[in-house]
Amino acid sequence: MTTKVDYLFTNAIVLTMDEELNQYEPGAVAVKADSILEAGPESQIKNKYSGTETIDCGGKILMPGLINAHTHVPMTLLRGLADDLRLDVWLLGYMMPVEREFVSPDFVRLGTQIACLELIRSGVTCFADMYYFEEHVAQATAEIGLRAVCSQTVLKFPAPDADFYEESLELGRDFIERWKDHELIVPSIAPHAPYTCTEEILHAAAELAVEFDVPLLTHFAETALEVEKSRDEHGMPVIPYAKKQNLFDAKVLAAHCVHIDEGEIHTLLHHNVGVAHNPTSNLKLASGYAPVSKMIEAGLNVGIGTDGTASNNDLDMFEEIRLAAFLAKSVSGDPTSLPAHTALEMATRTGAKALHIGDITGSLEPGKRADIILIDISRLHNSPRFHRDPGSIYSQLVYATKSSDVSDVMVNGKWLMRERDLGTWDESDLLAQAEDYAHRIDSFLVQREQSILSKLVAIGGALQEESFEVQAKARISDDTKAIEAIQSPEIEILYPRHYHEYDTYFLFEDPQQGTLRYREDEFIDKDGQVSNVRYRLTLIGPVREHQFPSDVLLSRSRFLAPAHHSLRFYREYFNPSGEVFIEKDRRRWRVLFQGTEFYVNLDRLDQPELGYFLEVKSRTWSRRDAEHKAQVATRLVEFLGASPEERLTKDYIELVDLGELNKEKT
Amino acid sequence: MTTKVDYLFTNAIVLTMDEELNQYEPGAVAVKADSILEAGPESQIKNKYSGTETIDCGGKILMPGLINAHTHVPMTLLRGLADDLRLDVWLLGYMMPVEREFVSPDFVRLGTQIACLELIRSGVTCFADMYYFEEHVAQATAEIGLRAVCSQTVLKFPAPDADFYEESLELGRDFIERWKDHELIVPSIAPHAPYTCTEEILHAAAELAVEFDVPLLTHFAETALEVEKSRDEHGMPVIPYAKKQNLFDAKVLAAHCVHIDEGEIHTLLHHNVGVAHNPTSNLKLASGYAPVSKMIEAGLNVGIGTDGTASNNDLDMFEEIRLAAFLAKSVSGDPTSLPAHTALEMATRTGAKALHIGDITGSLEPGKRADIILIDISRLHNSPRFHRDPGSIYSQLVYATKSSDVSDVMVNGKWLMRERDLGTWDESDLLAQAEDYAHRIDSFLVQREQSILSKLVAIGGALQEESFEVQAKARISDDTKAIEAIQSPEIEILYPRHYHEYDTYFLFEDPQQGTLRYREDEFIDKDGQVSNVRYRLTLIGPVREHQFPSDVLLSRSRFLAPAHHSLRFYREYFNPSGEVFIEKDRRRWRVLFQGTEFYVNLDRLDQPELGYFLEVKSRTWSRRDAEHKAQVATRLVEFLGASPEERLTKDYIELVDLGELNKEKT
Repeated sequence: MTTKVDYLFTNAIVLTMDEELNQYEPGAVAVKADSILEAGPESQIKNKYSGTETIDCGGKILMPGLINAHTHVPMTLLRGLADDLRLDVWLLGYMMPVEREFVSPDFVRLGTQIACLELIRSGVTCFADMYYFEEHVAQATAEIGLRAVCSQTVLKFPAPDADFYEESLELGRDFIERWKDHELIVPSIAPHAPYTCTEEILHAAAELAVEFDVPLLTHFAETALEVEKSRDEHGMPVIPYAKKQNLFDAKVLAAHCVHIDEGEIHTLLHHNVGVAHNPTSNLKLASGYAPVSKMIEAGLNVGIGTDGTASNNDLDMFEEIRLAAFLAKSVSGDPTSLPAHTALEMATRTGAKALHIGDITGSLEPGKRADIILIDISRLHNSPRFHRDPGSIYSQLVYATKSSDVSDVMVNGKWLMRERDLGTWDESDLLAQAEDYAHRIDSFLVQREQSILSKLVAIGGALQEESFEVQAKARISDDTKAIEAIQSPEIEILYPRHYHEYDTYFLFEDPQQGTLRYREDEFIDKDGQVSNVRYRLTLIGPVREHQFPSDVLLSRSRFLAPAHHSLRFYREYFNPSGEVFIEKDRRRWRVLFQGTEFYVNLDRLDQPELGYFLEVKSRTWSRRDAEHKAQVATRLVEFLGASPEERLTKDYIELVDLGELNKEKT
Repeated sequence: MTTKVDYLFTNAIVLTMDEELNQYEPGAVAVKADSILEAGPESQIKNKYSGTETIDCGGKILMPGLINAHTHVPMTLLRGLADDLRLDVWLLGYMMPVEREFVSPDFVRLGTQIACLELIRSGVTCFADMYYFEEHVAQATAEIGLRAVCSQTVLKFPAPDADFYEESLELGRDFIERWKDHELIVPSIAPHAPYTCTEEILHAAAELAVEFDVPLLTHFAETALEVEKSRDEHGMPVIPYAKKQNLFDAKVLAAHCVHIDEGEIHTLLHHNVGVAHNPTSNLKLASGYAPVSKMIEAGLNVGIGTDGTASNNDLDMFEEIRLAAFLAKSVSGDPTSLPAHTALEMATRTGAKALHIGDITGSLEPGKRADIILIDISRLHNSPRFHRDPGSIYSQLVYATKSSDVSDVMVNGKWLMRERDLGTWDESDLLAQAEDYAHRIDSFLVQREQSILSKLVAIGGALQEESFEVQAKARISDDTKAIEAIQSPEIEILYPRHYHEYDTYFLFEDPQQGTLRYREDEFIDKDGQVSNVRYRLTLIGPVREHQFPSDVLLSRSRFLAPAHHSLRFYREYFNPSGEVFIEKDRRRWRVLFQGTEFYVNLDRLDQPELGYFLEVKSRTWSRRDAEHKAQVATRLVEFLGASPEERLTKDYIELVDLGELNKEKT
């Protein structure tokens, strides 16, 4: 008697992609419910099993579905938005502002649906994603029926789904709790990258991942600059720093790993970190060449990912696998590097291991889920077929097969595509919705093209100041009291500075454009001599994020750029509607007060002659911290001798421009 | 009144790819006979022209067909034959032996037909080819209706279509004469590469190309090794050497140009040399990174090619264009390098210029031929579309479009594909023929897998000695006369050597396998001391190409490999059926005799004690030269004191093994 199964696949070239790379031709596979019962030679499998449905594969390849090890699926809606740009211009000028404006649960759902259909068409049955509103990504993916590791992004910056990182972590925890036992979705947490997270975020994310035993996704060492900064700030490169933050307590899947050395490879290996290699993205953004062959030789589980469609611009794993194989040869100078079968293993069995789900998918083995694709290799661009070497079939798949050769896709025992038919999904409706988003984004950017920020970015690459500042400010009658107070034992001075500053403010008719400041900073040494001069542009946005009690402000829309050109150049380039000039003497201290670090500015405005002002500022990344610092800042301003009546919430430029100095009363 | 035309294309996104990158949406194009009359805004074109057939393009992109600037189309039949191998193993172990065995007019015709259909499907309307039996490539291409620059290959080695280069040049001349005025085919000549040609070939090819005003195709500086060898042999890198050989008198299209410097770029520019960049092939064979951005900046016409399908493994220009754009960014470290529109220009207008046919194709301009493709960009993987920046459309084509999005192809005003239908071509018949070739090639290689050469190649990478040798040999009674003669004024000694040689010959049951010699060469210095020892393997084939009068032989089946392993290792690895050991003392001179260079070996066989032998050898590349040298060699042997009766045609091993020493009589 034969065992009854749901599906019996026959007459296929079965590539199991198991450790031994067993292949059967003609081969057969028995599937029951969500799982594979057995794969083997057709005669053997037919003797053991009979199918409720028997599928004659017509000599096609039957293999495990491909695994896209790193992507941001909702970004399909931003495909082709901005290409051929420098990373800072691309990110600050386009991606970030558009994401802040448009990314919503609806955006994420639509982008995910389009991505999933594109993934199915190209033979992908499982992917690892990190984005915002990740629960909506999971929801849309599960509805379509694909398998995914879905990871809620956490950043120290405000994100489309959270003003503070605590909220992102909370979103992540809720999401993981709700989805932990889903049959298709593995929920997880994604501290975006060491350089975009605080130590607190890294610790908290690792703890969360360990608590629920879910993967932790992140980006490591994508650019040389990132590594350089890590060395500067932490005295070590990215991987040791991540280790120090306990990240490797969790099951980590790290994207990129472009700029890592052999020691770091061994650290990753020791902690069973999976790596997602993204050849297209690394080339397109000129990030560098990941040492893929070395990682594989060392024994790391390296998968292949497309990255998001804004930096690729598609989700085509066949192209990605091919490029991974090509690039490794060139990088190592050895055409035998990363042979076809290894590249295909990276996109199947090894990729699943990198995602820490190697026990359930990635190969056709008894007990694993039925994540299966059929591929027609009989077409013109894929002929002829050589049989001499059993490895030729992998070479054919990697070097000549196109995603359009995938004909059928099954995930978890359920059909998602048959003979290239996606069933009930209405592609044209989704496309129409995507076009609507594109239209709105176009309009938004056309308006922004006029913006000062875009122009700033365009000429020099502005850097968003990596901070929100809590700030308190007050007028004082003279500087004597403040200088005395600052030298008292209650305050520890970390370092002092002295500047003479010449500021030219450009004003614009639309106040939403903010104000652009061109500053000439003279550094004054102990002897009162000018030791150095620095020129900077700062775009001060109109947005105040929050006003705490006692006139403490939380601000975060400042962009800095070095000013390499003359004031004349900027005047012509930005064409301001008005200008204000302010000259002041600034003494500045970095201090520790009641356990909190602050910058204290003691300013004397010389032109116009507005007298003395006191400012205290502190960087913050979280809401709780901001509230705490606002309270301490209020106490510090008072300790330095300012009376509550003299507190200000306005910038100098506002005092001057609006002629409101005398009216200012809080 | 409107002008009547054959085809009026309407409702298209018309990308002219002209110098100004004019685009029209909705746009229209008027085609009459084989040419474009005009492209422009739809309303304007519709007012001026009416079509015998009006084609509503349904909002698709209408643009000039792509140009594949470097390929070897018949190699579609070798696609996937051998991948992930070192160049020498790939070339010597697989490509060369298979080509010598299988490449025929029939092979070339079938391979070209398959390639042409694959090219049409992927939107290519024109390609530059170089292969053997090129007239048959041209014939098959013209029948299908594609445009091509077809180039007859000339090599100093024997080729599938010619034993000597004189024959290849003659084939080229006949082909060019017959096809010079064809409407689709531009015939041309292809000296394969400076390092695979003699100076005579380069001169003759350049003269031929100039005589008929046709392009000259070649490969330049594909690998670092090639440049190194050029410096060693000619004292200069590849481009100056090519210039010295008058190559740039012709209209040159040079493939690869990977390892060239800025000076060489300017030499190419000065001589209006077109360059074919082959990113996939360069990556896959680990050849290096061509300085594409620098070439383009300098003003060179750089096109994009797929190279042959044995090193790619497809003819997909969309993937190739994409990779060209990606790779240039990474190589230059600048993501703004080679933006999308430039990549697409390389594959259209600039590519045509590189092929020296920029006046007839490559853009949609009045008077150029109607080489047109339609592309559907409304599919899932290619959405949404942003309109803000007119450049987005190029970005969409380069970064997200697939060859399968091409729906219609017209060449020279004739339809080759409509709605992905290739018309009367029976793809399944072609595929069946290709499978038949694959089957025969498989069998051939399975037999060869046993071969000594394959095994030699597999362990060390044998080098085919870059020569055919004319050789004459004779027994002499002692060495006195020969040593006297060699010091006479008739002979100029270029350098002397002295070896003591210990040779172990491995014999095999199948005499077709040849004989493998393991040689230990002791270098003897002036004082009779051993100054150095060298270990080498030489596979001596059974083939004698030609026997000239006076027992002069022309041989060319010798493969050399350094012997890094022990004799024991090789004995086990090759498992010979018999062994012969020969020890001899060899004095060797490189001499000039009657204006011709020879090696003279004066051997004393010590074990077995066979006495003295005299050998003279000279390298040759052409039949005429070989005949000439055979005559001089005969005279030299006699001059050195050997009598005609003592001439031999057998190797020492044959003398010993067959016990035929005493029977040897010629």
